[in-house]
Amino acid sequence: MGPDLNSLLDDGDVGTPEARVVRILSERGAVSAGELARATGLARSTISMALAELRRGRVIVESAQEFARGLGRPAAAFALNPEAGTCIGVHLSREHVHIMLADVSHSVISEKSIALGLDYSPEAAGGAARREIRKIYAEQGLSPRGLVGVGVAFSGPIAPDGRVQRASIIPTWAGVNIRDVFEPAVEAPIFADNESNCAAIAEMTWGAAVGCEDFVLFKIDVGVGGAIVSRGQVITGIAGAGGEFGHMTLDPKGDLCRCGNRGCLELTASLNPALATASRLFGREIATEELLRLAAEGHVGCRRLIADTAEIAGRGLGMIGAILNPGLIVVGGRGALAGPLLMEPLIESYERHTLIKREDVPEAQRVRIERGKFTGNDSLMGAVALVLRRRRRLA
Amino acid sequence: MGPDLNSLLDDGDVGTPEARVVRILSERGAVSAGELARATGLARSTISMALAELRRGRVIVESAQEFARGLGRPAAAFALNPEAGTCIGVHLSREHVHIMLADVSHSVISEKSIALGLDYSPEAAGGAARREIRKIYAEQGLSPRGLVGVGVAFSGPIAPDGRVQRASIIPTWAGVNIRDVFEPAVEAPIFADNESNCAAIAEMTWGAAVGCEDFVLFKIDVGVGGAIVSRGQVITGIAGAGGEFGHMTLDPKGDLCRCGNRGCLELTASLNPALATASRLFGREIATEELLRLAAEGHVGCRRLIADTAEIAGRGLGMIGAILNPGLIVVGGRGALAGPLLMEPLIESYERHTLIKREDVPEAQRVRIERGKFTGNDSLMGAVALVLRRRRRLA
Repeated sequence: MGPDLNSLLDDGDVGTPEARVVRILSERGAVSAGELARATGLARSTISMALAELRRGRVIVESAQEFARGLGRPAAAFALNPEAGTCIGVHLSREHVHIMLADVSHSVISEKSIALGLDYSPEAAGGAARREIRKIYAEQGLSPRGLVGVGVAFSGPIAPDGRVQRASIIPTWAGVNIRDVFEPAVEAPIFADNESNCAAIAEMTWGAAVGCEDFVLFKIDVGVGGAIVSRGQVITGIAGAGGEFGHMTLDPKGDLCRCGNRGCLELTASLNPALATASRLFGREIATEELLRLAAEGHVGCRRLIADTAEIAGRGLGMIGAILNPGLIVVGGRGALAGPLLMEPLIESYERHTLIKREDVPEAQRVRIERGKFTGNDSLMGAVALVLRRRRRLA
Repeated sequence: MGPDLNSLLDDGDVGTPEARVVRILSERGAVSAGELARATGLARSTISMALAELRRGRVIVESAQEFARGLGRPAAAFALNPEAGTCIGVHLSREHVHIMLADVSHSVISEKSIALGLDYSPEAAGGAARREIRKIYAEQGLSPRGLVGVGVAFSGPIAPDGRVQRASIIPTWAGVNIRDVFEPAVEAPIFADNESNCAAIAEMTWGAAVGCEDFVLFKIDVGVGGAIVSRGQVITGIAGAGGEFGHMTLDPKGDLCRCGNRGCLELTASLNPALATASRLFGREIATEELLRLAAEGHVGCRRLIADTAEIAGRGLGMIGAILNPGLIVVGGRGALAGPLLMEPLIESYERHTLIKREDVPEAQRVRIERGKFTGNDSLMGAVALVLRRRRRLA
């Protein structure tokens, strides 16, 4: 028999040509033979032999997705065989467990959300995941034996060993190891990362950062978070707390933050102050979606609240610019749904506060600040991509 | 004849075992055969054959430096043959051109400084470098034909193509291309990077960060600067302005900075405010060395000035901690010469303002904050290491 997908995926950096091709297809979806040669540095003839071997083993298929870049004839593309395996993504958000089933060719098969209420327990999440995963495989008529891995996106920093750090937004999970929660639920390798790091991986795999190896994701929602990608890898930090932009100290004498510090960026650059002011103004609770709708419809007060949020966020982002000088900043979170109402003042504020100004440098050295492609389910998609990219395996 | 050092150094990532061994020796100095096998992932037998071939070609020698790690018999170590080639490092600081000659085995042969005065021109620097390099080779009885490359450390951000950015501290150099300045002076590849990035490379090659692939260098001197190293590579940023920590906006309504923004960290966290206050106090100009001496001798005012500098620097560093969560922070610049008088309040302030506190995480996930090994000539040593590591070649 030919090579098996799981062993090829585990073959690490110094792998055979087959393992290197599989690794790239798992990360990028459909890829042409020419691109595989460029990405691996292997000769075209070596790539052709590896592709033939992998097709014989039914690990890959010629992809329906064709490439229409440039003016030439579309090149044949290859992708992992959808039947060769499946991945589960799990996103543990504040009140919900979200679950996604996808095949290894990057196609989403199914997506579900289970409401567990505020401060749900790890046991509740593990149990719900076990039941839902079993149900999803039964509904789809698929065998759970094809599961190549489970990726978990968590709303807080996760230590390299899988332990949730204190600074998590679900206090009941501090100190819990993600592995202990999900190992009883699944017989497959478990991968885990912070939800913003997962969102960055989703944007890199399918979204606004495809083809970009160096970028920053900056999320504006009811919190502020983000991720840093350098040379195609997320900078997780020694304790898993890289990219915690919301906890930059903007004002050391400012209000107390849930993290125990004062004057964190999140207190003023998240949507919370805008929502609180709007709620006071309207005499009833205004949620994010309504604030965005009112602003889109032209309500000057709501527009100003979004612009003020953008101004402060842009100042924080300007500091990130001085520190990292990234080529691309992807703005995510539901704040990005405000479109130009947020993006224009944000970019203006970034320009005012950062070191390298647009006019200082030629086009190729300017930062691009763009909206993310995903807002609703970026972390969940990233959890799937975590498996496809085999990052931060918990063992 | 055997392989030639220059072609082996240029052999890139997909090289022969010989090229991979040479690359590692050029980066690390003396290395044992066992370490070479680990670092390359090649079999011990392959390493032995490559070492034999390289010794035959006189590219490497068995090193006098022996390894006394652990209790076992010291392993034989190998290094590039000092006679196989030389490197020149050049540091362009505010008023001086510093030049260092080293051999490829990482030994410094000669070091000189030429005073050119404030705002010296690129022509003056290029001419001085040409004359001095010729003189140094003559004095040492070495042939300039052995020169494998020239590394240039510059006091300001440098674009990927070698152009000095506007935010440089030598205004007369804005827009000048480093390549155009030094190409007429030398017949060898030219490498260039920001002085703080070079300092980080020096600490990684010889200093406080040896063996560490992920760290932050934070320099406190009459300016504030730094560098970020991730997976063994400096994050240079799209316009060469990565690690410009001194230009984080601490107070958007603060004083005007030389960069054109307001309230930059450098205005309050560099040694300048302390020097200005001390000068006023003593009624005469107090330079950095005297401030440090007075503090060391117990002058309470000078001690407080250094502690205040450390407090603000620690706040900025705390933000860098929230963004990058590094495992190691190396504090450099002449501020670090104050020792515990600076380091203790700096670490305390970092702890107060950053997200992940010491008590939150086990020892292995805590940041270490340490003094750099070099302060006087870290950028110059880094310019030499730039050649040895073959980074950011300007072509």
